[in-house]
Amino acid sequence: MSAEIICVGTELLLGDILNSNSQFLAQQLAKLGIPHYYQTVVGDNPERLKQVIKIAISRANILIFTGGLGPTPDDLTCETIADFFGVPLVERPEIIEDIAHKFAQRDRVMSPTNRKQALIPQGAEVLPNPTGTAPGIIWQPRSEITIFTFPGIPHEMHRMWQETAVPFLQNQGWGKEIIYSRSLRFWGIGESALAEKVSSYFNLPNPTVAPYAGKGEVRLRISAKANSAAAAEELIVPIEQQLKEIAGLDYYGADDETLASVVGVLLRAAKETVSVAESCTGGGLGQMLTEISGSSDYFWGGVISYDNSAKARLLGVNPEDLDKFGAVSATVAEQMAIGVKSRLETTWGLSITGIAGPGGGTETKPVGLVYIGLAGPKDEVKSFEYRFGTMRDRWFIRHLSACTALDLLRRRLLSR
Amino acid sequence: MSAEIICVGTELLLGDILNSNSQFLAQQLAKLGIPHYYQTVVGDNPERLKQVIKIAISRANILIFTGGLGPTPDDLTCETIADFFGVPLVERPEIIEDIAHKFAQRDRVMSPTNRKQALIPQGAEVLPNPTGTAPGIIWQPRSEITIFTFPGIPHEMHRMWQETAVPFLQNQGWGKEIIYSRSLRFWGIGESALAEKVSSYFNLPNPTVAPYAGKGEVRLRISAKANSAAAAEELIVPIEQQLKEIAGLDYYGADDETLASVVGVLLRAAKETVSVAESCTGGGLGQMLTEISGSSDYFWGGVISYDNSAKARLLGVNPEDLDKFGAVSATVAEQMAIGVKSRLETTWGLSITGIAGPGGGTETKPVGLVYIGLAGPKDEVKSFEYRFGTMRDRWFIRHLSACTALDLLRRRLLSR
Repeated sequence: MSAEIICVGTELLLGDILNSNSQFLAQQLAKLGIPHYYQTVVGDNPERLKQVIKIAISRANILIFTGGLGPTPDDLTCETIADFFGVPLVERPEIIEDIAHKFAQRDRVMSPTNRKQALIPQGAEVLPNPTGTAPGIIWQPRSEITIFTFPGIPHEMHRMWQETAVPFLQNQGWGKEIIYSRSLRFWGIGESALAEKVSSYFNLPNPTVAPYAGKGEVRLRISAKANSAAAAEELIVPIEQQLKEIAGLDYYGADDETLASVVGVLLRAAKETVSVAESCTGGGLGQMLTEISGSSDYFWGGVISYDNSAKARLLGVNPEDLDKFGAVSATVAEQMAIGVKSRLETTWGLSITGIAGPGGGTETKPVGLVYIGLAGPKDEVKSFEYRFGTMRDRWFIRHLSACTALDLLRRRLLSR
Repeated sequence: MSAEIICVGTELLLGDILNSNSQFLAQQLAKLGIPHYYQTVVGDNPERLKQVIKIAISRANILIFTGGLGPTPDDLTCETIADFFGVPLVERPEIIEDIAHKFAQRDRVMSPTNRKQALIPQGAEVLPNPTGTAPGIIWQPRSEITIFTFPGIPHEMHRMWQETAVPFLQNQGWGKEIIYSRSLRFWGIGESALAEKVSSYFNLPNPTVAPYAGKGEVRLRISAKANSAAAAEELIVPIEQQLKEIAGLDYYGADDETLASVVGVLLRAAKETVSVAESCTGGGLGQMLTEISGSSDYFWGGVISYDNSAKARLLGVNPEDLDKFGAVSATVAEQMAIGVKSRLETTWGLSITGIAGPGGGTETKPVGLVYIGLAGPKDEVKSFEYRFGTMRDRWFIRHLSACTALDLLRRRLLSR
C-alpha cells in the first residue's frame, strides 16, 4: 500500500506558485505511516494528466490530487479522472445547494459556472469543503485504487484533509510504522552554535535529531519511528528533555508554539498584561500577539507611532529628545515603552523603534539598527540595542525586531 | 524539445523541506522558452529513480536533476543515472583537486567520502559548483537526451544554473518562444463572477488568460509567447487594457503591487495622510501599510485598541456606546476612525472592529462580523458591515478585514 501525490496546475509549471501542497501532504502521509515514493506535477492538460494517472496506478494505490477543481474551463482534474476510468459525471444537488448557500452567506449570487463544481464521478463520495466552493472526492474506481481530490488553495485543502481524509485513511488501517516528530524551537542562538552544543545527538538511529534554520530561529526536529504514538512519545521524551536542558533559556517552545503564544501563557499565569508601542514594525508586534485567540486576556493594545508626531502625541515622548537623540535611540525606546504602559495601565510596556530599510540608514545609524524598550513593574525600564545588519531585507529586519521584543519579554518573565 | 524536472531526495517525500528548486527551475525554463510538462519527485532509491528516468526519457529530451550529489551513502543520483545508461563512472582528478582546495580554504581536511563526488559518467562534462563541493554534470548519453545534475542546496544550484547551464542551453538554440506573464489583481469580486465577465478571453491562443484565486483575491494571468520581451509586451498590453476596463474598480494592481502599495501611491499623489485604529486585526493593517518602504510619507501611525479601555482612553470612544452597542458595532467603528484621525491630524482615519474567532461569537454577533470605519475630510465618516463567515479561520478573517479596509480607502480615493 503506497500513495502518490499528483499536483495539477499550469501555474506550477510556470513557477508562478511554490508547491507547498506537496510538502503538507508528504508530512501528513508520514504522520499516518502511509509510504509514498513519488510526487508528480502536471499542467491543466487532460491528455498529459491521463498519462500521469496511468503511470501512478501502476506504482501506487492511493492517488492524491490537488488543484484543478475550480469553476473555470481550465479546471479539468475531476472530469479527466472520471474520463480515464470511463465513468460518467453526475450532478450532485447537495453540492449545488451548499455552493448557493455559501454565496448567499456572502451576499452574492452563485454564478452558473459554479454548477460545474457539482459534477462528481458516479459512485464517488463527496469530500466536503467547509471553507470554499470546490468539493473534493473520495473514490474507489477499482477495488485496489483509492482517489482523493482536493482544491489547490492550501487552507481549503488542509481543512478537508484533516476533517475528512485523515479519519477515512485511519479507518482503512493502511498506516504502517508511523514517523512521529517533534520540533523544538530556539531563539537567540545560531544554527551552528546550537549544532555544536548538541552534535552528539545527530548520530542517533531512532529517534533521529536534525537541525533546521529559518526566519531567525533554529529548530531541532526529533523524529521517531514507532508502531504507535505512545511508543514514539517514549522514544522522543528523554531526548527532548536532554536537549532542552542543554539549550537553557534559548529553548522557547515546541511544534506549533510561537514566541507570542509562549509569552501569552506566561502572562496569563502571572495575571499580568502587556501593551506595545511600535515604530518600524508598524503593528507587526501587535499582530503577532493577537494571532493567539484569547489574547485579549493579557494584551490590551498599543500605539503605532510611525511618525514622530504620533510618538509625542500618543505616547508623550519628549519632542526635545526626539530632536536631540533621534527617533531611533535608546531613550526614545524607553519613553515609548513607559508611555504606552502608563496610558493603558498594563504590567508591561514593550516598544520598538528602528530603521527597517532599505532607505533611511546613515553612517551612525545604519539600516538594521533597532532599539527595543521594556517597561515593567515598579517603573523599571530598560532598552536594548540590536544591529540586524545592512544585508537583511525590510521584511526580515521587521520580523526579527518583533520576535526579539517578544523574546526579551519571555526571558524577563522567566527570570524572576 | 521539452524538459522534465526531477528532484531526488527522501527528505522531500517526508515533507522535511519545501521544494523550492522546482519553482526556480520552472521559472527559469519559462524565461528561456523551453517548455516543460512534468515535474517528478523521487526518494534516494536507485530502482525507483531508474523507473523515473525511463518514464522521463519517453516524454522529454532534457532531464534536469536536483539532489543526491552529496558525499554520503544515500546520495545516489549520479551513479544511478550512469548505471541506467550502462556507462561506467570515472574519477576526475580535477574535481578531487577542487574539493581539496575548498576544504583547505576553510581550514579543513577533505574527508575520504568526498572522493565519491569526483565520479562522473564517462563522456560527461563537469558542471562546476563554485560555492559547494558537489559538482554537477552536463551529459548527452544518447543523441536526443541531455542530462543536467545539480546539488539540492538552492543557492549552489542557482549559481550553477546561471553560470553554466543557462549559457549552454542558450547556445543550443532550444529556447523557442519566451513565456512572458503579467498578473492582474482584483479585490471585491469572486473568482467565478470575474471569470464570467471575462470568459471570452479564456479561449485566446496567445496571449492566454487564466484566473487564479487565493487569500481573498482573484488574479488573471496574461501569458504571452513571443521572441522578445518587447514583442510579448505588445501582445499583453491591449488585453490588459480590455480586462481592466471590464473589471472597473475591482481591478487594483498588477504583478507585485499590493492593496497597501496602491493606496500609498494614491495618498502620495494627493498629498494626503492616513492613520489606523485597529481592534480585531491587532496591528495587521498598520503592518500592511508599513510593508512599503517610504510609507512614513503618508502613514502617520495609529492605535491598537484591542481592549475596550484602549478604545476609550486612546481614541475617545464613548464608554456608554461601548456598553450599549458593543465594541463590534457601526458606531464604535465610526468613533474609532474619527478618534484616530483627529488625534493624529491625518486626512483619513481607517478603523476595524470585529470578531475574528474562533471564540467570542454570539447569535446576533457571529464570528466573522466586522465593521470598518472610514473618516475623511470635512468630518465625513462612514461605516461598513461585513460578514466574513463563521467557517473561515482567525487568520483569514483578520486578513480579509485588513485588506477590505485598504480596499475601501482605495475606492474612496479613486471615486472623487
